[in-house]
Amino acid sequence: MIHNKKLRIGILGGGQLGAMLIRSAIDYGFEISVLDKDVNAPAARYTNSFTLGDPENYDDVVAFGAQCDIVTIEKEAVSTKALKYLQDKGVQIHPSPELLATIQDKQEQKEFLKLHNIPVVPYVPVASKDELYGHTSRLPACLKMRRNGYDGKGVMMLHSEKDIENAFDGPAILEQKVKIKQEISVIVARGEDGAIEYYEPTLMVFDPEKHLLDFQICPASLDFEITNQAYAIAIKIATKMSLVGIMAIEMFITDDNKLLVNEIAPRPHNSGHHTIEACATSQYEQLIRAITGIPLGDTRLNCKAGLVNLIETGKRLDLSAIMNRPAIHLHYYGKQNSKPGRKIGHITITEPNIEGVIAQIAAIKNILN
Amino acid sequence: MIHNKKLRIGILGGGQLGAMLIRSAIDYGFEISVLDKDVNAPAARYTNSFTLGDPENYDDVVAFGAQCDIVTIEKEAVSTKALKYLQDKGVQIHPSPELLATIQDKQEQKEFLKLHNIPVVPYVPVASKDELYGHTSRLPACLKMRRNGYDGKGVMMLHSEKDIENAFDGPAILEQKVKIKQEISVIVARGEDGAIEYYEPTLMVFDPEKHLLDFQICPASLDFEITNQAYAIAIKIATKMSLVGIMAIEMFITDDNKLLVNEIAPRPHNSGHHTIEACATSQYEQLIRAITGIPLGDTRLNCKAGLVNLIETGKRLDLSAIMNRPAIHLHYYGKQNSKPGRKIGHITITEPNIEGVIAQIAAIKNILN
Repeated sequence: MIHNKKLRIGILGGGQLGAMLIRSAIDYGFEISVLDKDVNAPAARYTNSFTLGDPENYDDVVAFGAQCDIVTIEKEAVSTKALKYLQDKGVQIHPSPELLATIQDKQEQKEFLKLHNIPVVPYVPVASKDELYGHTSRLPACLKMRRNGYDGKGVMMLHSEKDIENAFDGPAILEQKVKIKQEISVIVARGEDGAIEYYEPTLMVFDPEKHLLDFQICPASLDFEITNQAYAIAIKIATKMSLVGIMAIEMFITDDNKLLVNEIAPRPHNSGHHTIEACATSQYEQLIRAITGIPLGDTRLNCKAGLVNLIETGKRLDLSAIMNRPAIHLHYYGKQNSKPGRKIGHITITEPNIEGVIAQIAAIKNILN
Repeated sequence: MIHNKKLRIGILGGGQLGAMLIRSAIDYGFEISVLDKDVNAPAARYTNSFTLGDPENYDDVVAFGAQCDIVTIEKEAVSTKALKYLQDKGVQIHPSPELLATIQDKQEQKEFLKLHNIPVVPYVPVASKDELYGHTSRLPACLKMRRNGYDGKGVMMLHSEKDIENAFDGPAILEQKVKIKQEISVIVARGEDGAIEYYEPTLMVFDPEKHLLDFQICPASLDFEITNQAYAIAIKIATKMSLVGIMAIEMFITDDNKLLVNEIAPRPHNSGHHTIEACATSQYEQLIRAITGIPLGDTRLNCKAGLVNLIETGKRLDLSAIMNRPAIHLHYYGKQNSKPGRKIGHITITEPNIEGVIAQIAAIKNILN
């Protein structure tokens, strides 16, 4: 580890995940560059090296990456072709362009997992909307665009044949509706030397009506067997994908206690926000360590943690009542012109026990509503 | 607390304290501007609004501050006259220009403390080098320039009359050499509403030969009486100075168990670096809260903490052996062209008990030496 060297890390994407990554880059004194389409992106204000450009545009990424020693991502929608070119020119790209290409395509992602005997939600590929009419016996099912879906975009439930009319057209996968009792996420980190560290599972609780995250708790308090299976899956995926960086693996726990991988995000993830306050090494610092060759850090939870999102309502946000509480940590993203319904921040809770976390979550939700 | 408003905080000085302050500004999504004489200053790279200029220059500070909603400092050597002008124009200046002017002049600082019956190291003012010859009976004593001393600069021991020859000339104070057994620091925060929070005392242990900080431990494990006296002094100073922001109060504990205030720094301070990892609210976040009108945060220690500085040696720094250890946290400032002997980073240790902290400090010092 040569740390006297001036090292420039480029981040594709300038959202709040990028801003939180800069927070950790400051701890190591690294130079940071950010590429984003929006000059007002949250991370843009925390670097002296912001480039206005599209992370999905080949030329923009090549020009941006050429000035960096290492390039990483805070969103999956990036030009992997440009990253491959940069890699060939000697720029370190973490995670690799190949890994990103596999993740970007939901069908390829699933096929990769199946190939390695990792349990996934059963699915069929569909090339177009018309093809859906041949799968009516599979409904109700979840239709996901193969590419460019995020935060609920490119995902819809088809309850019955009449929903097909409003379905999006184009390459997609149709996933069986499985009966699940819980959703969890495991964040795993892998260094260039193959060393692996992972974080305790986070329980993600969704609002059944709004289909938005209601709150998160870590640890998820799962039984020993399921926890170990989740770790084994995370380690296997990180290894088989030759990950260098971090990766969130979202999994379903079915009614009959089986784990199924839902989605993979090879970057900092909202299910790991609490690691900033609750773990010795946050997911953001872990990413910095992994991509710069610094030994991976201690992932242990120092306390129990919870998370509640702040959603734009269009009304003035008065957080005084929340900020007066002990053991809460605000992360406000400072987004410009955010539309109602968008995530504009989150509040992390740290408490000695889970009961305390649950009580704080309830109190915060009561203040926000 | 209106938090949807776009708020720009200006920081006078772009050193590592400024960079760590930006780390906390990210949590609140605030816009940050930095003024420093050096375009390569550590904080300069973490803002899209860096101004090259001298925080001690009237015109530079006025031009810089005019674009900010709030101006704060990360070093004391700033133009208070410019800050007064900005304050009159409606820019919020925290801490106030008056407080800064009092602190900048060591004699005024001492007179202020004496006026409020706060115990200080006994001293006499001296106008010039020549005057020192009239105080030879007071030697050995410590000579401190009234203005612009920092990190050992502007401070020297006069052991006997023959040292006067090499003493600096100009307004100074001559402090009695007191027999001390310990040096501590208490960091206190005060909001605009007068609310006060303070952190547990930090024990600062100096190398008797190099006159540099050897290590720090928090809490200082003082007896109940002394601890309460230290808090009472901190509260009184913050109140009497109408502080809005944070302040480190360095104190001596004399051989006969008396507290004497040594120096005051009305800004984030190295004695509070550990609050980033060890406290619910770091000194940096606390400063952001205090100056933006957010209720002050929880200052409790979640664990015991230690700190070892990283000093430039001119040799390549290999931190692998340290980074492999659990419960250590690197802060590397990324300074350009730092001279041997200068502070280039620090390592914070967090452990469940003081014995663990002491063991880690010894292990880290062994690796560094």
